[in-house]
Amino acid sequence: MEVGVNPFPLTFAVHFLGIASIAMVFVWTIHYLGGLAWNSSDKSLLFNVHPVFMQIGLIVIGGEAIISYKSLPLEKEVKKVIHLVLHAIALILGIVGTYAIFLYHDEKDIVNLYSFHSWIGIAAIVLYGVQWIYGFVIFMYPGGDPCLRSVSMPWHIVFGLMVYVMVVAAAVLGYLEKLTFLENKGLAKFGSQAYLVNFTSVVTVLFAVLVVFCAVTSPPAPAYEDYAPI
Amino acid sequence: MEVGVNPFPLTFAVHFLGIASIAMVFVWTIHYLGGLAWNSSDKSLLFNVHPVFMQIGLIVIGGEAIISYKSLPLEKEVKKVIHLVLHAIALILGIVGTYAIFLYHDEKDIVNLYSFHSWIGIAAIVLYGVQWIYGFVIFMYPGGDPCLRSVSMPWHIVFGLMVYVMVVAAAVLGYLEKLTFLENKGLAKFGSQAYLVNFTSVVTVLFAVLVVFCAVTSPPAPAYEDYAPI
Repeated sequence: MEVGVNPFPLTFAVHFLGIASIAMVFVWTIHYLGGLAWNSSDKSLLFNVHPVFMQIGLIVIGGEAIISYKSLPLEKEVKKVIHLVLHAIALILGIVGTYAIFLYHDEKDIVNLYSFHSWIGIAAIVLYGVQWIYGFVIFMYPGGDPCLRSVSMPWHIVFGLMVYVMVVAAAVLGYLEKLTFLENKGLAKFGSQAYLVNFTSVVTVLFAVLVVFCAVTSPPAPAYEDYAPI
Repeated sequence: MEVGVNPFPLTFAVHFLGIASIAMVFVWTIHYLGGLAWNSSDKSLLFNVHPVFMQIGLIVIGGEAIISYKSLPLEKEVKKVIHLVLHAIALILGIVGTYAIFLYHDEKDIVNLYSFHSWIGIAAIVLYGVQWIYGFVIFMYPGGDPCLRSVSMPWHIVFGLMVYVMVVAAAVLGYLEKLTFLENKGLAKFGSQAYLVNFTSVVTVLFAVLVVFCAVTSPPAPAYEDYAPI
């Protein structure tokens, strides 16, 4: 399934789309939805924390973590640490963003975990954490033996990309769900806010497609020395 | 990225989940939403045609087409024809299902193509068609030269799986969108219909995860004779 393309130039497009998607979420939450606040009498400002943290964290930093092996002109061992740290930051931001929405629901007396957006989102975060811990233990510290590393690597890649696709699916489900709520309350279906939110989904999907593409466009198995014990 | 697992036994789980998801969509549309009809004074019966055709067509038959190389104990050339024919059936059912929702919108004076569900759905169908035509021309008739086939195969796999993931994303977005409409009209968020629709999404995602997994769990490049001219 290896596609013979050097992914490095494509990683610039990934950075650009990632930044664009974050900018779009900021414009949406600040300009259209009134801004961000953890503590405010206007509880909707707490809601706004949720998409901002999820987009920056699990989507963009998570995506950058995935492509870090392809985007950075550094030593393999350095990139490994960056890969691990970026995924940790993504996960922490994702957990804080998830906590924000639970808090918002509680403040507004809205029930939790009733939609498929929340189900796949929770499942994705749990699997993201499992994947991180497995990766840390096997590839970083204490590190598995070379044979276990060698066997684990393709599973790490395939499972990791599947979890990332789940994260992206959760994001676009969330954008659609929130926009549907707003449209049910009278927001114009072809108005500027609707276009902004839908195009945020478009940019997010394009970003994710390029992330996955970069991940599968180089020799899939790392060189032998990566399997050697630390 | 090759995972060393024989996908054949897993394909039985794929068949089971696919049939289960279709059964769930039938229970939803017939038992909860009143049944299916192309021509009826109750236009909501026309709506119901849409999820049924999309689920059977692009999701299940499309998924079965993808794994046909792994699920069928037949000659490669026979499987190639089955792969092509199943994808054609999936595409035709998908187009009819899409036509149904446009017709329903027109009958009910609902605008078309305003949601991200519709955007990614239309994009996925167009790309599905492009992929089918490219596959037919290069691998079936008239057939590209061996070098072009060899270069095209990994692209065909990666692009095809990405389009399939888009199709699945469109499906779960659609289930969430319709359920959100119903919940806004008073349907219980933790009622039996809500659980049925959300679990249809769960089963659909599990089906798709297994389809993609089966697709990437065998030697990625087909044997040399597949690249030979017909």
